[in-house]
Amino acid sequence: MQRCPLVQPDMLNVHLVAHTHDDVGWLKTVDQYFYGIQNDVQHAGVQYILDSVLSSLLADPTRRFIYVEISFFSRWWRQQTNATQEIVRDLVRQGRLEFANGGWVMNDEAATHYGAIIDQMTLGLRFLEDTFGSDGRPRVAWHIDPFGHSREQASLFAQMGFDGFFFGRLDYQDKTVRMDKLEMEQVWRASASLKPPAADLFTSVLPNIYNPPEYLCWDTLCADKPFVEDPRSPEYNAKELVDYFLQLAAAQGQHYRTNHTVMTMGSDFQYENANMWFKNLDKLIQLVNAQQQANGSRVNVLYSTPACYLWELNKANLTWSVKQDDFFPYADGPHMFWTGYFSSRPALKRYERLSYNFLQVCNQLEALAGPAANVGPYGSGDSAPLNEAMAVLQHHDAVSGTSRQHVADDYARQLAAGWGPCEVLLSNALARLSGSKEDFEFCRDLNVSVCPLSQTAESFQVTIYNPLGRKVDWMVRLPVGKHVFLVRDPSGTVVPSDVVTLPSSDSQELLFSASVPALGFSIYSVTQGPSQRPQAYTPQPRSQKPSSRVLVIQNEYLRARFDPYTGLLVELENLDQKLLLPVRQAFYWYNASVGNNLSTQASGAYIFRPSQQEPLPVRHWAQTRLTALVQEVHQNFSAWCSQVVRLYPGRRHLELEWTVGPIPVGTWTLALSWPLSPQVHRRLLRDDARGVGEPLLENGSGVWVRGRHLVLLDKARTAAAGHRLQAEKEVLAPQVVLARGGGAPYHLGVAPRTQVRGRGAGRERTRMKPAAGSENGPALRVPAPPLRAQPRPVPRPLSAVLGAAPGAAALRASAHIGPLGPDDAAAALGAPVRRRGGPGRQPELPSDLGLEAWPIHCPQDLFSAFTITDLQETTLVANQLRARASRLQWTTNTGPGPTPHPSPSWLDPATITLQPMEIRTFLAEVQWERDS
Amino acid sequence: MQRCPLVQPDMLNVHLVAHTHDDVGWLKTVDQYFYGIQNDVQHAGVQYILDSVLSSLLADPTRRFIYVEISFFSRWWRQQTNATQEIVRDLVRQGRLEFANGGWVMNDEAATHYGAIIDQMTLGLRFLEDTFGSDGRPRVAWHIDPFGHSREQASLFAQMGFDGFFFGRLDYQDKTVRMDKLEMEQVWRASASLKPPAADLFTSVLPNIYNPPEYLCWDTLCADKPFVEDPRSPEYNAKELVDYFLQLAAAQGQHYRTNHTVMTMGSDFQYENANMWFKNLDKLIQLVNAQQQANGSRVNVLYSTPACYLWELNKANLTWSVKQDDFFPYADGPHMFWTGYFSSRPALKRYERLSYNFLQVCNQLEALAGPAANVGPYGSGDSAPLNEAMAVLQHHDAVSGTSRQHVADDYARQLAAGWGPCEVLLSNALARLSGSKEDFEFCRDLNVSVCPLSQTAESFQVTIYNPLGRKVDWMVRLPVGKHVFLVRDPSGTVVPSDVVTLPSSDSQELLFSASVPALGFSIYSVTQGPSQRPQAYTPQPRSQKPSSRVLVIQNEYLRARFDPYTGLLVELENLDQKLLLPVRQAFYWYNASVGNNLSTQASGAYIFRPSQQEPLPVRHWAQTRLTALVQEVHQNFSAWCSQVVRLYPGRRHLELEWTVGPIPVGTWTLALSWPLSPQVHRRLLRDDARGVGEPLLENGSGVWVRGRHLVLLDKARTAAAGHRLQAEKEVLAPQVVLARGGGAPYHLGVAPRTQVRGRGAGRERTRMKPAAGSENGPALRVPAPPLRAQPRPVPRPLSAVLGAAPGAAALRASAHIGPLGPDDAAAALGAPVRRRGGPGRQPELPSDLGLEAWPIHCPQDLFSAFTITDLQETTLVANQLRARASRLQWTTNTGPGPTPHPSPSWLDPATITLQPMEIRTFLAEVQWERDS
Repeated sequence: MQRCPLVQPDMLNVHLVAHTHDDVGWLKTVDQYFYGIQNDVQHAGVQYILDSVLSSLLADPTRRFIYVEISFFSRWWRQQTNATQEIVRDLVRQGRLEFANGGWVMNDEAATHYGAIIDQMTLGLRFLEDTFGSDGRPRVAWHIDPFGHSREQASLFAQMGFDGFFFGRLDYQDKTVRMDKLEMEQVWRASASLKPPAADLFTSVLPNIYNPPEYLCWDTLCADKPFVEDPRSPEYNAKELVDYFLQLAAAQGQHYRTNHTVMTMGSDFQYENANMWFKNLDKLIQLVNAQQQANGSRVNVLYSTPACYLWELNKANLTWSVKQDDFFPYADGPHMFWTGYFSSRPALKRYERLSYNFLQVCNQLEALAGPAANVGPYGSGDSAPLNEAMAVLQHHDAVSGTSRQHVADDYARQLAAGWGPCEVLLSNALARLSGSKEDFEFCRDLNVSVCPLSQTAESFQVTIYNPLGRKVDWMVRLPVGKHVFLVRDPSGTVVPSDVVTLPSSDSQELLFSASVPALGFSIYSVTQGPSQRPQAYTPQPRSQKPSSRVLVIQNEYLRARFDPYTGLLVELENLDQKLLLPVRQAFYWYNASVGNNLSTQASGAYIFRPSQQEPLPVRHWAQTRLTALVQEVHQNFSAWCSQVVRLYPGRRHLELEWTVGPIPVGTWTLALSWPLSPQVHRRLLRDDARGVGEPLLENGSGVWVRGRHLVLLDKARTAAAGHRLQAEKEVLAPQVVLARGGGAPYHLGVAPRTQVRGRGAGRERTRMKPAAGSENGPALRVPAPPLRAQPRPVPRPLSAVLGAAPGAAALRASAHIGPLGPDDAAAALGAPVRRRGGPGRQPELPSDLGLEAWPIHCPQDLFSAFTITDLQETTLVANQLRARASRLQWTTNTGPGPTPHPSPSWLDPATITLQPMEIRTFLAEVQWERDS
Repeated sequence: MQRCPLVQPDMLNVHLVAHTHDDVGWLKTVDQYFYGIQNDVQHAGVQYILDSVLSSLLADPTRRFIYVEISFFSRWWRQQTNATQEIVRDLVRQGRLEFANGGWVMNDEAATHYGAIIDQMTLGLRFLEDTFGSDGRPRVAWHIDPFGHSREQASLFAQMGFDGFFFGRLDYQDKTVRMDKLEMEQVWRASASLKPPAADLFTSVLPNIYNPPEYLCWDTLCADKPFVEDPRSPEYNAKELVDYFLQLAAAQGQHYRTNHTVMTMGSDFQYENANMWFKNLDKLIQLVNAQQQANGSRVNVLYSTPACYLWELNKANLTWSVKQDDFFPYADGPHMFWTGYFSSRPALKRYERLSYNFLQVCNQLEALAGPAANVGPYGSGDSAPLNEAMAVLQHHDAVSGTSRQHVADDYARQLAAGWGPCEVLLSNALARLSGSKEDFEFCRDLNVSVCPLSQTAESFQVTIYNPLGRKVDWMVRLPVGKHVFLVRDPSGTVVPSDVVTLPSSDSQELLFSASVPALGFSIYSVTQGPSQRPQAYTPQPRSQKPSSRVLVIQNEYLRARFDPYTGLLVELENLDQKLLLPVRQAFYWYNASVGNNLSTQASGAYIFRPSQQEPLPVRHWAQTRLTALVQEVHQNFSAWCSQVVRLYPGRRHLELEWTVGPIPVGTWTLALSWPLSPQVHRRLLRDDARGVGEPLLENGSGVWVRGRHLVLLDKARTAAAGHRLQAEKEVLAPQVVLARGGGAPYHLGVAPRTQVRGRGAGRERTRMKPAAGSENGPALRVPAPPLRAQPRPVPRPLSAVLGAAPGAAALRASAHIGPLGPDDAAAALGAPVRRRGGPGRQPELPSDLGLEAWPIHCPQDLFSAFTITDLQETTLVANQLRARASRLQWTTNTGPGPTPHPSPSWLDPATITLQPMEIRTFLAEVQWERDS
């Protein structure tokens, strides 16, 4: 790349990468980090870092810097003057300021959902694309701090168009072996399904996590000695430092295959006073390179970037070995497995998933309703705040549960703040699409069975929106008073319903099954019946202790049997297939290690270290109750641990809903476990010395958590279809919105609708015009090539709708969830899906299985709400047209990979093919239907 | 001043003074502070501060900054490129970077000698004058941190040309009263002798020592909240901060008399990342001033400087009250008197005084010998390193004894390093002036009675240089072996000598009295006699315990009597005047307080706080020995406390030489005391919580100290003449230099001289030419108006000689040491001294009394070594011609002072008049006598 610095071909080139690692929340909140508040807790102020780096880059043209976290950068950018922005653009253009990774955050790889990862990367990368065009486009992924690395993350990065991947944390033993075998750098073949090199990613393990070498940290946060060149000073050290550096470079170079090596010159929140760093790096470079002339040294040191380093590696044209599995789990020493964070802060983790679900609904309704969603009778609706909050939650100290308590609280606050504008948006959209301006209620507290409207109103209506691309049946649960209710479906027909009393309370919930079309909604109405609680069923204690009576729940698919003496689940039976499986499910806990003679390591937010291998049972038996009507077994294990085992009519899974908390304070960890030992909650009195400096106590709302496990019993050959579809349905569950009913019509004289399907009839209308060079489209067509939209306002995130009709693009990644795998069912799901459009011909299963979220595929009128007038494929994160994207090619020791063929820039929407595990993103130009 | 910012005449103007306070050594050494080493001890790096302030000043033209410590600034300046230097010059020219105080350091006011204060101020101010001309000249003195303030310091500042004086530390009760009475600002009439307004100095007590107001510290070292202007941020605080500031400004303004008030925005080593400060100050100014429009606020806030603030005060044209006494002692709370540092680290204090003495000798010989002193047979001689080291030692944490131990060690190292080039200079000069190239030995260890040459050589010569402007007789003491010696004076005549054995050792010292001319030297020769120790006298123990025999020592002037039972001095008698004084002298110690129920304050390096008021005697009696020949009484009080009481023939004073140490570690303070309680040594186990963070233990060489008290017995009326002359003789004691003798002649065929007088015969030769506008003088004439010499090399410090003959200026302050006072003798000494030149007419006493160091006065050929060809008077610190210097005038409530009359720019050297206590500085252009 012409923007890269010159290297010395016959020397060892040490690429100094000046960088800062700015956690989007950890010991301080995002705002505290940005502004530099609570510097007594941790000295860190990102606004000053960016100010300071800018000054230092301007002071010397050889200096380079990389920046990573776009949530911070974009905020800083908005506070700059036009003049400063122009200066920054110039630095970016010259490659002196380079973005790496470029996501909104540097996401966690273990506790995240891939959809949210794509969203957060898209948010950041689109900001860069819109602000700097291709000059600002990161070429490398840079995950230097996440606590282990997943193969799927690498696959996603490959599909996002990255040329390479740098990270720092891998198992300490793995690292030792790789250093010895010169396998610190490899090609990661990140998908067994996608055809190479689609998911191949060149991967480089950094030498020192992401820190500078010992004694060479010249940040305001460090205390290493700066260069003193004056030999008269008692502190003179220049010669000593240069000698040390030469030794260091030579030693490090021996673990890498080319004559290039990287040193990461920076760390957490460094460069707040960049001059300190650069002044000393300037001297290092000058003095070390002077040795080439002075004594024939063969070490050349230079300011560089990961992309420029990667470029040199690529030019070396070596053959690289291939890596296929995960970099999980991560241990940084014996007894130091970073697996605690898989379950730290389960309440926050759940809130994140719930918000993901809600955001997808919000995005979809924004696209379906068009501009009417953003400005309508309920005010300004906006998906951006929740989109940004969700992006923040993907940070590797957010959803991971490894932040301090007040920061975790602030993450929750951000999510909650994001919900508001989405609720307005949903109200606008639902009113527009249903034709009725209702006083919608969103009942955010359904998880604790609180919803004033359903609990008090004599009648109300329930709008259920389904974000899946296929029709679903969904069991609606709403808290109600002690009444009997009549539930009517969209056609006015009364449907079955039940009212159940919750365990350990006298609260009641109304249950009914709703049927909802793909990308659409159904409105059910609920009316209080005449008589007081004739059918409400209060479960009777079967016994204070388990009795000898056989305890069984059963529906048409499944039978679950419980031990009459212990109250524990002991057997599952698939009635269709006559499968009988003895099982055992109970609650166990781990005593957290506080350190012992093997290691001082304590269990903490990051690290899971039980004091002994075997978990201890909470109790060997459970008090049970059986509710006859709704097939629930209530199990009570202790004052803070109980479970409801449920079997719904018509559902193939057994649901185990546990409630745990508050865990009595003790130095231990609860685990629901046997034989797989998944932990469900953690409460710890010690910190694990990985920086967070606070024990994971969660004295607030996180102290008490509830979760569900869904159990399917099937043969291995066919199980995948069941569990994959069920998982999808959980992640993108229907959204329930309440209203009293009787709202004013949206358009006078137009009757409201009680059911709306977002997927159209698939009628073929007009042929789509070619995309490339089609600059004569509608003015608001976004994002057309070039994607850069400056000086237009920064486009709102993906899946948002821009401008009025004739409107601009709504866009969305689609995912084919079937992998290529050894089991038959998976293989069946994973077969290539070819979509054929045509009048009246809607895709049936399994093509629906291949769709996550809401696909904008063929044909043009796939969606009822708008017409697609143009469609182009982009990289996964929509920051460049896929046809124009190119990645560096690498030779592997498995032989040369096939040359990737670019997708055509003009898409025939009738023939889009999704490969197994493939996710593709399209930009669509659409025209919303006019108000009738 | 036109460089000052605009103010609002009808509002309260808050002058924000952005500043950093950079201790020249304290917890870290000077080099460590400059480079930013040991940042884990204290985060501080001056190089970065100056880099950073420069960047921030360039970023916004309204910003201003003051800098103070020129030792740091000049070092930084030398490391800058020409381009950067030009940028800095421009900022200085515009008044955006302003120097305050401008000394090499911010000197202590209690433990310093006034001569060294003038030297260190001169060093800094001359750097500024030579680098920036009048643009860089500080208008105000700025002593924000020294621990109390002396009237003499203020007098010196007035004579240096300062317009005003700002400080921060005064007694907390005094401050309260001043705030209430609106006397935070006054005119300090700093001399009772000098005619007002010569020593009048406008003095302003800063509101918050030198720190920013609470909550408004936006440095990287602070943790106050930065401005968050975005109301959507959960950290939004802009309104709250503005409201707070308005309240604060109003409250502060009530304690000052004008509609102007200062806020010091900075503190110790702040502005290392100046952007943090300035970015938030920018917002403060913008938001606070916006209130003027928004709600009619009458507060105006602006970037300013102390000089600009002072200018506004002067324009206010008020009548100010007058202050006459000291601001000593300083207490910052009850039981918190900062008087401990008066005696902390006595060994370092002594080394500083010894170095002052040596530096004056070095400076004088540099001038007397001319260029031959700098380049000669012994190499390159240079007074600059010792001059700079001495300047550093004046810092208020250096000679004060309040630095950490390793820093105190480094101060000593700097002095020692400075001695070397001065010794070379002395060798060159003495060889040149005596005509003989001897192998000079300087015997730095005479204080511990070590000098290999005198202890081993059979014969050697002793050169004694007298830096006083009058002839002195001096008792030379040299360690010798157990021999008998013959001592001959410069004429070859044998003079009386003695050899004494030292107490508590078997070492011996040779004593003889030498007579040395003014500013000249005498060479005595010492030869071992034939017989083995016939005259060496070993004192016999008079008794192990005091006996009943009367113990008396006596010479022609004085008799001292000791109690036969206790061994303590009990009576002094002035034999001339028949004065008999009962006395009691003994050693006492204070138990250091570690805090009690009155206050938690512990005694420490700064603070003297005994656990009880009355000191405890080390012992009630002393073992004594009497040496008959040299009139010494040896007293032993304990294993670590002894004293020699001496009476020399022909001397009017009794000498008490005590030796203390190592003080056994205990939590207490030794004091030699009764009734005046002067402490002589301190060893402490606690820190006094004023930042040094280290108990004053002095486990190294400082553990053991020796000192002398000289006692004169006289009537009050006549005592001053005696003690002032004696003190001068101690401070500027003769310098003893040894050599084996027999060196080669400096010029072949020219006989060496054994006695040289620096003062010439006073013959009138040529009339001096007028100075003003005399630009046609010799090329190297320095400093002629304008004083700025750029782009010539930075001139070396005062009293140094520049260039070759026809040579440039040697210059020196002169002091008339007699104050106007109530006692007759002092009054006599203080009478104006009018010097009348003329052939053969040398000034006699008392004019000699009026001279300290070496005066370059009338007539031209006052000095034997060179001829004065031009003479101009400057301010005390030689940074501007006195004739051109002007100071702001202030009206006092004592009535209008007389208008100062400028001295004529052309001086008639025959009529220079020194007022009592006046010190004047002249620049002389000289021509050294050619080598014969």
